[in-house]
Amino acid sequence: MKIAIINGPNLNLLGRREPDKYGTLSMENILADLHRDNPDIELSYHQSNHEGEIIDTLHRLGYDEPVDGIVLNAGAYTHTSLAIADAIAAIPVPVVEVHLTNIFARETVRHTSLIAPVCRGSISGFGAKVYQLAVSALSL
Amino acid sequence: MKIAIINGPNLNLLGRREPDKYGTLSMENILADLHRDNPDIELSYHQSNHEGEIIDTLHRLGYDEPVDGIVLNAGAYTHTSLAIADAIAAIPVPVVEVHLTNIFARETVRHTSLIAPVCRGSISGFGAKVYQLAVSALSL
Amino acid sequence: MKIAIINGPNLNLLGRREPDKYGTLSMENILADLHRDNPDIELSYHQSNHEGEIIDTLHRLGYDEPVDGIVLNAGAYTHTSLAIADAIAAIPVPVVEVHLTNIFARETVRHTSLIAPVCRGSISGFGAKVYQLAVSALSL
Amino acid sequence: MKIAIINGPNLNLLGRREPDKYGTLSMENILADLHRDNPDIELSYHQSNHEGEIIDTLHRLGYDEPVDGIVLNAGAYTHTSLAIADAIAAIPVPVVEVHLTNIFARETVRHTSLIAPVCRGSISGFGAKVYQLAVSALSL
Amino acid sequence: MKIAIINGPNLNLLGRREPDKYGTLSMENILADLHRDNPDIELSYHQSNHEGEIIDTLHRLGYDEPVDGIVLNAGAYTHTSLAIADAIAAIPVPVVEVHLTNIFARETVRHTSLIAPVCRGSISGFGAKVYQLAVSALSL
Amino acid sequence: MKIAIINGPNLNLLGRREPDKYGTLSMENILADLHRDNPDIELSYHQSNHEGEIIDTLHRLGYDEPVDGIVLNAGAYTHTSLAIADAIAAIPVPVVEVHLTNIFARETVRHTSLIAPVCRGSISGFGAKVYQLAVSALSL
Amino acid sequence: MKIAIINGPNLNLLGRREPDKYGTLSMENILADLHRDNPDIELSYHQSNHEGEIIDTLHRLGYDEPVDGIVLNAGAYTHTSLAIADAIAAIPVPVVEVHLTNIFARETVRHTSLIAPVCRGSISGFGAKVYQLAVSALSL
Amino acid sequence: MKIAIINGPNLNLLGRREPDKYGTLSMENILADLHRDNPDIELSYHQSNHEGEIIDTLHRLGYDEPVDGIVLNAGAYTHTSLAIADAIAAIPVPVVEVHLTNIFARETVRHTSLIAPVCRGSISGFGAKVYQLAVSALSL
Amino acid sequence: MKIAIINGPNLNLLGRREPDKYGTLSMENILADLHRDNPDIELSYHQSNHEGEIIDTLHRLGYDEPVDGIVLNAGAYTHTSLAIADAIAAIPVPVVEVHLTNIFARETVRHTSLIAPVCRGSISGFGAKVYQLAVSALSL
Amino acid sequence: MKIAIINGPNLNLLGRREPDKYGTLSMENILADLHRDNPDIELSYHQSNHEGEIIDTLHRLGYDEPVDGIVLNAGAYTHTSLAIADAIAAIPVPVVEVHLTNIFARETVRHTSLIAPVCRGSISGFGAKVYQLAVSALSL
Amino acid sequence: MKIAIINGPNLNLLGRREPDKYGTLSMENILADLHRDNPDIELSYHQSNHEGEIIDTLHRLGYDEPVDGIVLNAGAYTHTSLAIADAIAAIPVPVVEVHLTNIFARETVRHTSLIAPVCRGSISGFGAKVYQLAVSALSL
Amino acid sequence: MKIAIINGPNLNLLGRREPDKYGTLSMENILADLHRDNPDIELSYHQSNHEGEIIDTLHRLGYDEPVDGIVLNAGAYTHTSLAIADAIAAIPVPVVEVHLTNIFARETVRHTSLIAPVCRGSISGFGAKVYQLAVSALSL
Repeated sequence: MKIAIINGPNLNLLGRREPDKYGTLSMENILADLHRDNPDIELSYHQSNHEGEIIDTLHRLGYDEPVDGIVLNAGAYTHTSLAIADAIAAIPVPVVEVHLTNIFARETVRHTSLIAPVCRGSISGFGAKVYQLAVSALSL
Repeated sequence: MKIAIINGPNLNLLGRREPDKYGTLSMENILADLHRDNPDIELSYHQSNHEGEIIDTLHRLGYDEPVDGIVLNAGAYTHTSLAIADAIAAIPVPVVEVHLTNIFARETVRHTSLIAPVCRGSISGFGAKVYQLAVSALSL
Repeated sequence: MKIAIINGPNLNLLGRREPDKYGTLSMENILADLHRDNPDIELSYHQSNHEGEIIDTLHRLGYDEPVDGIVLNAGAYTHTSLAIADAIAAIPVPVVEVHLTNIFARETVRHTSLIAPVCRGSISGFGAKVYQLAVSALSL
Repeated sequence: MKIAIINGPNLNLLGRREPDKYGTLSMENILADLHRDNPDIELSYHQSNHEGEIIDTLHRLGYDEPVDGIVLNAGAYTHTSLAIADAIAAIPVPVVEVHLTNIFARETVRHTSLIAPVCRGSISGFGAKVYQLAVSALSL
Repeated sequence: MKIAIINGPNLNLLGRREPDKYGTLSMENILADLHRDNPDIELSYHQSNHEGEIIDTLHRLGYDEPVDGIVLNAGAYTHTSLAIADAIAAIPVPVVEVHLTNIFARETVRHTSLIAPVCRGSISGFGAKVYQLAVSALSL
Repeated sequence: MKIAIINGPNLNLLGRREPDKYGTLSMENILADLHRDNPDIELSYHQSNHEGEIIDTLHRLGYDEPVDGIVLNAGAYTHTSLAIADAIAAIPVPVVEVHLTNIFARETVRHTSLIAPVCRGSISGFGAKVYQLAVSALSL
Repeated sequence: MKIAIINGPNLNLLGRREPDKYGTLSMENILADLHRDNPDIELSYHQSNHEGEIIDTLHRLGYDEPVDGIVLNAGAYTHTSLAIADAIAAIPVPVVEVHLTNIFARETVRHTSLIAPVCRGSISGFGAKVYQLAVSALSL
Repeated sequence: MKIAIINGPNLNLLGRREPDKYGTLSMENILADLHRDNPDIELSYHQSNHEGEIIDTLHRLGYDEPVDGIVLNAGAYTHTSLAIADAIAAIPVPVVEVHLTNIFARETVRHTSLIAPVCRGSISGFGAKVYQLAVSALSL
Repeated sequence: MKIAIINGPNLNLLGRREPDKYGTLSMENILADLHRDNPDIELSYHQSNHEGEIIDTLHRLGYDEPVDGIVLNAGAYTHTSLAIADAIAAIPVPVVEVHLTNIFARETVRHTSLIAPVCRGSISGFGAKVYQLAVSALSL
Repeated sequence: MKIAIINGPNLNLLGRREPDKYGTLSMENILADLHRDNPDIELSYHQSNHEGEIIDTLHRLGYDEPVDGIVLNAGAYTHTSLAIADAIAAIPVPVVEVHLTNIFARETVRHTSLIAPVCRGSISGFGAKVYQLAVSALSL
Repeated sequence: MKIAIINGPNLNLLGRREPDKYGTLSMENILADLHRDNPDIELSYHQSNHEGEIIDTLHRLGYDEPVDGIVLNAGAYTHTSLAIADAIAAIPVPVVEVHLTNIFARETVRHTSLIAPVCRGSISGFGAKVYQLAVSALSL
Repeated sequence: MKIAIINGPNLNLLGRREPDKYGTLSMENILADLHRDNPDIELSYHQSNHEGEIIDTLHRLGYDEPVDGIVLNAGAYTHTSLAIADAIAAIPVPVVEVHLTNIFARETVRHTSLIAPVCRGSISGFGAKVYQLAVSALSL
């Protein structure tokens, strides 16, 4: 089984950026744990601060180098990118939305997700654990 | 480890009610699977169509017969009950919000959760699997 | 043919409560007239000030002691209870919404009915006559 | 007793227009049934696609050729015509608002009735039966 | 100098309609006074309950049988007719908006005038006197 | 092939009315060009300032004297007439919405079209050319 | 008969301030004309840029040095001062609201008048003529 | 004189629940002080987390076991329960709304009180003192 | 103990102004009662219709001639003056907001208090009694 | 004559993506038809999922490699990109907005076009035909 | 060159008022620095808590004792005073809006500036430095 | 001291683009002046039309090639990019927001800045001078 993880803007700074909000774990740590805990799953990782690149990646993982599921932390694009939502709707692969923080406990602008309606489901607020939970949601 | 599952209004009809929306599994089936897959966790189950009873139960599980975590599917009260939100904030036990369906893909009135801001995190849209994911989120 | 009438909060005070707004007829008077005018219909009556109890009653009349139609005056819960709306949608029995007063001629908060979209139809503003009209709507 | 039925825009197409939404009965069929079922009531019928003509008709039936009650299906003018609402308020004859469909289960723009506040009451969602129910509401 | 008075929907009932709100003077009385008090002005009077006819009249008085000024009491169309506003903007004759009642002391829907922005000015709330004030505004 | 063009309120003034906004071409000029450029299409032309007459015309062209397509410039009724929208939905003939000006570059009230959702498509902002473009859209 | 004119903020600059918007007449010119044209009326004039002073003046003219009517151009306080509205409601003298410009043809913030609902009536958009029209409205 | 105190949801946890927000005094302490300071008043105390029970209690204290005044801390139901508001309006006993915290200094959802318009008055923000102030308001 | 009472706009008319809404007691009567009932408290009284003067007074009572508490009835400035709110926040003396009427039972514009969030607490709706209740709230 | 066609996000999937919504024609097919039907026009084609690249392309086609007109299907960026709107306004080449689907018959978020106000005109809802219609609008 | 600094409500407390928000520098300190750093500029200073006085000052500095530029910190009047905005528009002297704090990082009510649209420009969030920056903006 | 200037979308066209709105100075001219006037500051310049590239640049200037301050003119992304706002919050370098035009005097969509709350401060409306003012704000 192939699962891809896509991280959106500013998530390359995980571990360095506002650690009291986003934790001190880097994405490298998180990925290492995921690989260890899911030995039978072929995991790939993608990160970009560019909305267009996330769309390109979704297209590629949907059609040209297809995977069985995608875990997407779209960061702030969650709330502003209808184009990413359209890309999710345009591909035949299930996408799970994740957020490290509980977006509903933050500023109003973060309470609306443009991508949620076209995702398989949504998981938010458990810190780094959301990646494992999403992988479970896709693989169970 | 003790985890309680609380189901809110109309979830007693699970399996009978609008099966194309909520699935054909009854809560009995779901609980049997949860018990089997989490042998080390002491699981209890509570359901009520009464907002007040859900509050009473949260109080009891928070103070008098305390558990280590609560999985709450508040059903429609998710969107209308500030009193349940206050009960969650009032107890020292972490609560995870779950929904069988992707509430963001439904009517606008279901896009706002009054309880989300005071929950540890939120999981929605994976059908019966959300209970296991929430148990994992609390026990991992 | 079996038809159930369910009255919601504060309707137990009918005849005593703000008589210039709600009339001086008690529900006993209204029911007596209904029994007399619909001799072939088996009428039952239910009242509760508890949202949860109204949901319980809808479930019972939908599945366990099924009737052929339900006349529901949800009172103020009309405007605040998505959980009752879900209960109506969850049962296979047609429900008719009634209101003694013309809710559109009252305060703004009463102009939106959360239950209307899932009811068979809606009748408001004719005083005690709405119960007979709803019975006719179900039985004609 | 004299009761007038006024149908607004597009209701001349009843039976031809979107039959799965509005039914296959023509207004001729409905009127025939009404005449048969209400032998003691003098029924008149009026239809116009013109807002101004509906106002003219309401004035005439209110003052010059007065009736005892009016059943008004204002169609889409329900939601846009304050002028018809003013005409209803300007005449001394009670008016009952009817709709074939449950307007609250349709698009948002149809959830607000400008005429409801000045009508005696409102009946919607029972298909062709709403005319008989309104006649009953006026004559009982 | 030629001035035309155009009255919109329901104003044909002036004197009969809700006299405590609109007064007991009929338009005939008001016109008689206007003729008497403005002997040098050629006054014409037009009334219609039809939005389209008001537009036709504005066009005719603007181009084909031009006058020097128009006093328009558009009644409820004030609040709903962008088409009348466009007609006012489309003709080279100044139009003064009048209302018998103080529309700002009434329901919210009457606080917004679609025609006000394209009128020369607006006068409301002095009862039958508004016609004389508007004639003065145009002729002074 | 038969195509009808329907113009709504104030469009009878085309060429005379605010020429810097709507151009100096009269509808006669525009129709002459359309006839010349579409020799194989039977074109008819209809104009009214009356909402009700536009509805009557749509009904006639939809059922009694059917055409293959309708080009509708509803003028200001675009933004206020749900009744015209219902008429479009009620007939089996495709309707194309046109506007001479770019309505999105004008006042906010003109940004919402009530008829757009039930039209085949929409063309705005190219001046008199929109009629030819709409005829092409229907006939290609 | 005694009539007072109260001008609010920035109206002391009349004639100097944005003359293309407010005209080149100074208030002195306007008052001279008013005195000449209304020889039988005792006119007084008050201007202040201070909200509190306008309230004080209204109180004095309402109770201590009572007049028969007040013409109030509240300037920008029209849209922001509920306290002036309360002062108008608190005194037994009729107040007429005037504006030199057509406030409905200006920015949105100027479309709402907090004082209009408690005034006798409202006149706007005729330039300096509004003072004479208001005096007429009070004295006719 | 008989005064009843009714506490709504989560107020049974007073003293245990978020003490920095709601204080460390339990309701027992507060009641003891009230009894001591108001020896001539017959005080009764009622608490429920159930909206329906609060309505039942209001009815009983209004009609069957009438008191002279009611102090109501409706907790979160303040902001969501139109049914409790209707119950207050339905009984002939004056009700005073109280809140321990200053609800206007908290989240937006707590700024709107559905019950305030039908209460005699409202007191908020003085901690446990609000009960004594409300008793004074009823008894002075 | 020193407590100051500050009354805002139009409250100098208390007893004269709309007595059915605000009562017939003058502020002199109310102050006399307050002095009699609180012999140990040094009470001062301030009234102004000027927003700026209320701010000046708050500053003086906060810093230069400090008191132990302030009772503020800001009248209509409650709903429009952010500057008074800032003044309250800027001084180290607790301020209690009072209103003679139940502002929540009045027009919508009076439901929002700009000053409430920075006051110690709020008391409204008990007529002249609110001053004594506020003094109690500060002195108990 | 040179005309450029710019397609925005997800339009590279045309023919593969949700074919019941967007049709089965690929952009290659559409371009082939455009070349065949417009032999005298030099057509170029550009597609990108990157907002920034669309802006870069608009700049290049506006200044450095200028064309005579641009047909822009901005996809989801239509509704979220003010930066593309600014780019359109910044170049001296006319831009025509097109959409394959009738955006007004879809979700609310798609009813607002940020780019429409700065485009020459807008064409939507005729499927692949919109490209030809836009080319005609620019070249006729 | 003459530049005037006008400070609005509560800014007389600078240095004393909420020092963690507004700093510990008094306006005297700030002015001393400004005089030292701008020896060639004739600086004057004005402060008032009265909206009307700020308007009077703007008029005087605009016409009677004209300066070359005005630096205005309108404090809370920024968000509520359309009258000050009108005064700025009414004078021929450029006005620069300044704020010590970043108003966009504060409560929503402070995000809207009524005066910004009529100012030359706006500077906020650099503490006491904003005065020097504004002087530079006017004098460079 | 190192200060970086980042310009967002369409600012590469400065001097060519709508010169009456944005001036005729090119960024090259502006930078030359900045270098000349700030000889002790090491200035770098960055421009991109890509949201993602601006984020990448902010990260690089925040962590990998750190500067002491950043002047950001985010152009239209100011109003739509929460991702850039997150990037600003994620880096330890102060960022100053600048705009050439007074954004509050333009269309409503430009009145809301998503990045302002996380910037040190904001300067807008002085044309090319805003860059020097921002450099001063960071270096003084």
